[in-house]
Amino acid sequence: MGSRVWFPTLGLVAWLCCLSLEPVQAGKVLAIPVDGSHWLSMKILVEELGRRGHEVVVLVPETSLLIKGSDSHKTEIYQVPFTKAELDENFNSLRESLFEKPPDITDLFVNVQRLVNFTSFQERGCESLLKNEPLMSRLKREGFDLVLTDPFLPCGSLLAQIFSIPAVYFLRGLPCTLDLKASRCPAPPSYVPVSFSGNSDVMTFPQRVKNMMMSFVESYVCHMMYGHFDDLVRRHLKDFQSYQELISHGSVWLLRYDFTFEYPRPLMPNMVLIGGINCAKKAPLPADLQEFVDGSGDDGFIVFTMGSMVSDIPLEKSKKFVEAFRQIPQRVLWRYTGVLPDNMPKNVKILKWLPQNDLLAHPKAKVFMTHGGTHGIYEGICNGVPMLMFPLFGDQGDNVDRMVTRGVAETMSIFHFTTESLVAALKRIIHDKSYKEKMATLSAIHRDRPVEPLDLAVFWTEFVMRHKGAEHLRVAAHDLNWIQYHSLDVLGFFVLIITFALWLELKFCLFCIRKCGRKGTGKRKRE
Amino acid sequence: MGSRVWFPTLGLVAWLCCLSLEPVQAGKVLAIPVDGSHWLSMKILVEELGRRGHEVVVLVPETSLLIKGSDSHKTEIYQVPFTKAELDENFNSLRESLFEKPPDITDLFVNVQRLVNFTSFQERGCESLLKNEPLMSRLKREGFDLVLTDPFLPCGSLLAQIFSIPAVYFLRGLPCTLDLKASRCPAPPSYVPVSFSGNSDVMTFPQRVKNMMMSFVESYVCHMMYGHFDDLVRRHLKDFQSYQELISHGSVWLLRYDFTFEYPRPLMPNMVLIGGINCAKKAPLPADLQEFVDGSGDDGFIVFTMGSMVSDIPLEKSKKFVEAFRQIPQRVLWRYTGVLPDNMPKNVKILKWLPQNDLLAHPKAKVFMTHGGTHGIYEGICNGVPMLMFPLFGDQGDNVDRMVTRGVAETMSIFHFTTESLVAALKRIIHDKSYKEKMATLSAIHRDRPVEPLDLAVFWTEFVMRHKGAEHLRVAAHDLNWIQYHSLDVLGFFVLIITFALWLELKFCLFCIRKCGRKGTGKRKRE
Repeated sequence: MGSRVWFPTLGLVAWLCCLSLEPVQAGKVLAIPVDGSHWLSMKILVEELGRRGHEVVVLVPETSLLIKGSDSHKTEIYQVPFTKAELDENFNSLRESLFEKPPDITDLFVNVQRLVNFTSFQERGCESLLKNEPLMSRLKREGFDLVLTDPFLPCGSLLAQIFSIPAVYFLRGLPCTLDLKASRCPAPPSYVPVSFSGNSDVMTFPQRVKNMMMSFVESYVCHMMYGHFDDLVRRHLKDFQSYQELISHGSVWLLRYDFTFEYPRPLMPNMVLIGGINCAKKAPLPADLQEFVDGSGDDGFIVFTMGSMVSDIPLEKSKKFVEAFRQIPQRVLWRYTGVLPDNMPKNVKILKWLPQNDLLAHPKAKVFMTHGGTHGIYEGICNGVPMLMFPLFGDQGDNVDRMVTRGVAETMSIFHFTTESLVAALKRIIHDKSYKEKMATLSAIHRDRPVEPLDLAVFWTEFVMRHKGAEHLRVAAHDLNWIQYHSLDVLGFFVLIITFALWLELKFCLFCIRKCGRKGTGKRKRE
Repeated sequence: MGSRVWFPTLGLVAWLCCLSLEPVQAGKVLAIPVDGSHWLSMKILVEELGRRGHEVVVLVPETSLLIKGSDSHKTEIYQVPFTKAELDENFNSLRESLFEKPPDITDLFVNVQRLVNFTSFQERGCESLLKNEPLMSRLKREGFDLVLTDPFLPCGSLLAQIFSIPAVYFLRGLPCTLDLKASRCPAPPSYVPVSFSGNSDVMTFPQRVKNMMMSFVESYVCHMMYGHFDDLVRRHLKDFQSYQELISHGSVWLLRYDFTFEYPRPLMPNMVLIGGINCAKKAPLPADLQEFVDGSGDDGFIVFTMGSMVSDIPLEKSKKFVEAFRQIPQRVLWRYTGVLPDNMPKNVKILKWLPQNDLLAHPKAKVFMTHGGTHGIYEGICNGVPMLMFPLFGDQGDNVDRMVTRGVAETMSIFHFTTESLVAALKRIIHDKSYKEKMATLSAIHRDRPVEPLDLAVFWTEFVMRHKGAEHLRVAAHDLNWIQYHSLDVLGFFVLIITFALWLELKFCLFCIRKCGRKGTGKRKRE
């Protein structure tokens, strides 16, 4: 785009004038979130809906960790048949032995078993909500227009179906890609890598074999993992056979990714990509942090966090981190609550919580050291900061692969890294310009979109309320079973027809041969 | 959404403030349109790009019918090895015998043969452009940032590849769904109806059998139909084997439909739906028309057009129309240039051209009588006017099926309709409220979108210029052949492994049996 003049997007300005400012009725939204980091991003939409005049009630178990009421929404608390300590214990099992041994192929099954335990626990909570008749009647009387939920747990979609109101889903994805299966979204295993496969979208033949095998395993695992939810659904909804069938009725899937992070692949009409919704807002830094980062000079600073689920790291590992930080000129902001070695270097500031997104937005931010959760990754992308990643569990390995493939991050094993390898990696990321350049390009593409993710999420939530669903986006594939969807019955019919035709032809040939034979015999007899 | 207050979309207003008004560099666009009705909608985008400060050069064959220069864009005319009369004759063959006999299954082949003739003619035009060295050098020197083209004809995508600049496609779809094949968009024949099949997205078993058979036929037809283009591509680009392969390199597909018209089905990341782009702008009616429609009273009026390709209708047919119009109280505006019967009724006004969209926007418009071109259909949808449709050729039958399935239109055969059946159909559409109500719902859904189609088209065109393509939206499937894409090699490998394992098992069993047998024989011998 040569040497032509620059001017502000007249397009967007003209566009504003054309917008059909259709009046939006204030709606009543029942939000049923999943606790923990899942809530942190749904909260952004919940609060925005509140700000835009909708009445939002958030349904919260009494043991909730993070979900609180606010000016923008009310909370409705329900009892669960377990204590907070029990929940914590169950939750802790998810992060158990995180630092003990390197992950291997059997981890898939360990992770699944942990998730099964966790979800069976959550199922009990949901069951007790559904049996809480006074609360259920009260919620029903409220006349909600919409259920906003994360289908990672089943309560939201169940309530939507029981109350006969449309559901909007808000998620990053579901274990064993149940989101794709439920929305009937094609994901050919020839170029869509299966979770935990370590594959990218470009695969060699052996990688494609592995991918296909893992897609078979995944199908089996799916069956096992969602068993509790399937039972719950069958108990409460006579017309439904599985959890997958239930969630296939969601009106719109708000998916927290886009194709600067995820590998490009097919989408369904009711999928809306809102990746980066969590890095919309910037706030000024607290004075002490501002001073710390401003004072980092040309060397800049590093932001380091292992996510809200990791409160401490074994001391021998944290020592390695500290020793590495001692050897570099950058300042380091480390979100950490665990035990630290003595004699901490002066360039390291430890905080119990840090304004990650605001720090990454600072021009002196050089590297983001993170475990590879999608929230952090999008904050890295939208602020254009290259990453050094230590994937720990769940989807983090897959997330990290995506960033490494794009050349905007390096990955290190939390089990095998040394002080030297860490220093070397940090130096590479800081001094090899390609990381920063590729990240700047990725960031520019990510931020260049016709509508901001939060506004898109609000639009589609309001759309579903205005039109009582989004039936026009629902594919007819939902009414087909597996055999019909893959046209196996039709192909079988063709095989039958062809076989019958061949049989007829064979019969006819045999008949001709016999006829000719007889004639021959007759002739010979006559002769 | 109960009895709550109404207020203007704060959302949209808030949104405007968040918009990242990124500066857009004025780009240089080479537009290579397809003449006729295809140009009429691309022109909307071309003019808007011009208005937004981009320099647009439209490449036009000297025989062009409709493409003219304007304030917003320049035209560059190239010579073609045929006269306008020859082109007209070739073009006329497309509409030949339109009214002679009802369509049947063999029409698919007739239509294909006509298209082959038409496209081979167009290919000659393209060939002469590519051999026009002075013009080609001049165009190359211009340093365009983007080719905007309709891949219905091959010149645009060829030039983009030759000049190594990204291409944006603007189309409704391609014959035999080459657009889906080239973009690697899955379209399972179990619920995506094949062109000319007469199926909807909900099919019985026999319909699915028909759909599958027609998808086989379509694959064969594709081969035949794009033969000329394949040859052209192979002649000019050594690395390309087919036209499908060439157009798979398009950065973004701007598709003139959405799911209020098309049946919902999978999409690819680089597909952008801009259905309804042609009914954005409304203008006041000319005084005489305004007076005519205002004076239609409570009965309202009917808009009747058979599209720009049909200039006249056989007299016995136009008589039937006229007699039907005589029997109804509605006024009729008929775009028609052919011979008319004597004694025309006073409620009918004949015009050589009519402002269709502005007329349909009038509140007294009751029925839109049309042949089922997508431009007209979208004007019907966006203005919420139910339709009576007379499909003639090409995709019109499929288009009409989509509207009839939704209960917003009726269809009549141009060969079999009578004055009585026409009057009855018009009365049903006017007096049975369901047509209007369903159309109003469809219209509301169609118009309820986060970004207007024209702005979306401009956004993605500018996006491709800003980022020199949209590589992040290109699926890795493009690098796989048919066998790899469907994982047939991987499945074959599994079959091989399983067969080998079974063979080994069989060998082992036989070995055991033999061993046991020998032992038995030994025993017996010893006995």
